[in-house]
Amino acid sequence: MNSNNLGLVETQFFTFAHPPHELTLESGVKLGPITLAYETYGTLNKDKSNAIMIFHTLTSDAHAAGFQKDDPKPGWWDGMIGPGKAFDTNKYFLISSNVIGSCKGSTGPASINPKTGKPFGLSFPVVTIADMVLTQKKLLEHLGISKLFCAAGGSMGGLQALKWAVLYPECVDSVISIAANHRHTALQIALHEVGRQAIMSDPDWQNGDYYGKSIPARGLALSRMIGHITYMSDKSMDEKFGRKLIGKERVGFDFSHDFEVENYLKYRSDSFVKRFDANSYLYLTKSLDYFDLAEDGDLTATFKGVKASFLVISFSSDWLYPSYQSKEMIRAMKANDLDVSDCEINSSYGHDAFLIEIEGQSRLISHFLNRLSKEKIYGK
Amino acid sequence: MNSNNLGLVETQFFTFAHPPHELTLESGVKLGPITLAYETYGTLNKDKSNAIMIFHTLTSDAHAAGFQKDDPKPGWWDGMIGPGKAFDTNKYFLISSNVIGSCKGSTGPASINPKTGKPFGLSFPVVTIADMVLTQKKLLEHLGISKLFCAAGGSMGGLQALKWAVLYPECVDSVISIAANHRHTALQIALHEVGRQAIMSDPDWQNGDYYGKSIPARGLALSRMIGHITYMSDKSMDEKFGRKLIGKERVGFDFSHDFEVENYLKYRSDSFVKRFDANSYLYLTKSLDYFDLAEDGDLTATFKGVKASFLVISFSSDWLYPSYQSKEMIRAMKANDLDVSDCEINSSYGHDAFLIEIEGQSRLISHFLNRLSKEKIYGK
Repeated sequence: MNSNNLGLVETQFFTFAHPPHELTLESGVKLGPITLAYETYGTLNKDKSNAIMIFHTLTSDAHAAGFQKDDPKPGWWDGMIGPGKAFDTNKYFLISSNVIGSCKGSTGPASINPKTGKPFGLSFPVVTIADMVLTQKKLLEHLGISKLFCAAGGSMGGLQALKWAVLYPECVDSVISIAANHRHTALQIALHEVGRQAIMSDPDWQNGDYYGKSIPARGLALSRMIGHITYMSDKSMDEKFGRKLIGKERVGFDFSHDFEVENYLKYRSDSFVKRFDANSYLYLTKSLDYFDLAEDGDLTATFKGVKASFLVISFSSDWLYPSYQSKEMIRAMKANDLDVSDCEINSSYGHDAFLIEIEGQSRLISHFLNRLSKEKIYGK
Repeated sequence: MNSNNLGLVETQFFTFAHPPHELTLESGVKLGPITLAYETYGTLNKDKSNAIMIFHTLTSDAHAAGFQKDDPKPGWWDGMIGPGKAFDTNKYFLISSNVIGSCKGSTGPASINPKTGKPFGLSFPVVTIADMVLTQKKLLEHLGISKLFCAAGGSMGGLQALKWAVLYPECVDSVISIAANHRHTALQIALHEVGRQAIMSDPDWQNGDYYGKSIPARGLALSRMIGHITYMSDKSMDEKFGRKLIGKERVGFDFSHDFEVENYLKYRSDSFVKRFDANSYLYLTKSLDYFDLAEDGDLTATFKGVKASFLVISFSSDWLYPSYQSKEMIRAMKANDLDVSDCEINSSYGHDAFLIEIEGQSRLISHFLNRLSKEKIYGK
């Protein structure tokens, strides 16, 4: 085990909103009890001023760093979280929270509805990014923390971080938004809609009532294939696969797989189907598509009253959350005289870059957190 | 009827390669008889030097211009073809040819296999862009023409035009390649593969043997949705749809369609399913993915011996056939001292631009054809 690794970690669970104290979601629907899976790394300081909450992507989980028992693979952002790393566990107390609607230990459509004793399926209420943040706020309170030193995440995690700053301006010192934007665009909605239609067109989907039976594996695999394509870039796909054939000397002139890129999509989507719930895919993509930070259309007004310092990172080849959208957001932040640092990192890895470009991001994040910690943690 | 319209046109059919004189396809498989649907506009001149062949896209047909009886909609490139238009039927004899493998009047997987009396389905041989060109060459010979003044098309049509110049250098005075490239990339293959998997995952597909039964409508609709997304641009989708809701004041917090872009995809893909054969979608996407003009990997060498003059048009927001790929091709042409005109048209319409940006393309094409016609048609 490397000295800069966290070693063994364990996922914990927090259950709240027990009836009759259900939580009212953004849709107006009441839900309870609700469980959130989460992990923590590092130590909370005495005045509880060094807490950083980490938010994950669409299909990820609370296991962001370190190793779980009997799993040789570290958490999904292990390169960024640990002793001496960008999110330095020697300095900060990290909380990595799974989201409501997911299938990774938190309450979602695959959970048992206590009223029926059966999985919710489509009777689970639609959740939004605001609902994710609302439940994470309950988790923070449960941990006895009133304020986050930082809210940080990439992709869907970035949207949660941004929403934290707008929903709870008094509770967030800083936000790190990576490969995110302030509203889901028509292109993003369209891509998600194809994925949803793929799942719902699968006869095994059975209107969401497939638990304990055949899962809609074909539909879920298709939606994941589309996802994988959008997470890469034209250039990174060309560099990784190009027109390379699968151990063949020539194309087969048939409909078997000829190209490595075809095999890659199949391999990745087949493995995804084993680890993710199709209904959760529906719910979480919907929560993303509903996301619009400026609900009344005025983004500048949205950041009025927001107090956090921001670090906004985007990647040059990310066509799913393109840099120009980050820039729109930065303009609105700056119009409110907010403290904003921003950087477009030059990378060919597309949207995936935020999981790959560890060095460039680490430099930016360490510097940003160091600067703010002088005032917010050590300056008190 | 406008004076610059062609008026009524009719699709014609040419059948050849009757057994025992079947055509040998690139795969080595023999096929015959083969029918090609085509239309012609304008008049062939005395020395047969004014023929232009027009090639269509993946899902289009031979009806490129003018009106067919009882159809209020003109052909798919009517803005470009007609008296006084870019492809001026007062000057040129236009031949618009459907492709082998299509379901629009030419021999394809939905055609009856004369040996069995049943539709080919997956027993139809895989065809390539070279096979399309080979069959179009037979059509040209049938029309008594030995040389094309120009081979022209956009998207898949552009690939055919390029292949003409390489396969039959003595038979092509000029090539107009629009929104095309010299080899299908990993991104393009990946996007097509998802579409193919969507069709083949549909239980109604029945290994291609669905004729006379339920068609794989859900799978075909999904593949078309993906197609539509790739034909637009982030910007054009944002301008056309943004986050506009479908006659609602707020989102529904359910899985019904909320956004106009979702409805658009559904509407367009539902109408597509009525007019296109799923197996043809498989065959034609495969022909595109197999396309690599430089089969031995040396693009510069590929253009050795090519004699045509080239006009290469790309569009700034086309991310399916991006401009940088056209530029790679142009470099290889220029390395062979070929006469190349090229232009990247500034447009937000993405790949669809070649069907929409009529004015910009018309100027370039008229000028290119006028210049060459002085030497190749009138200069003789």
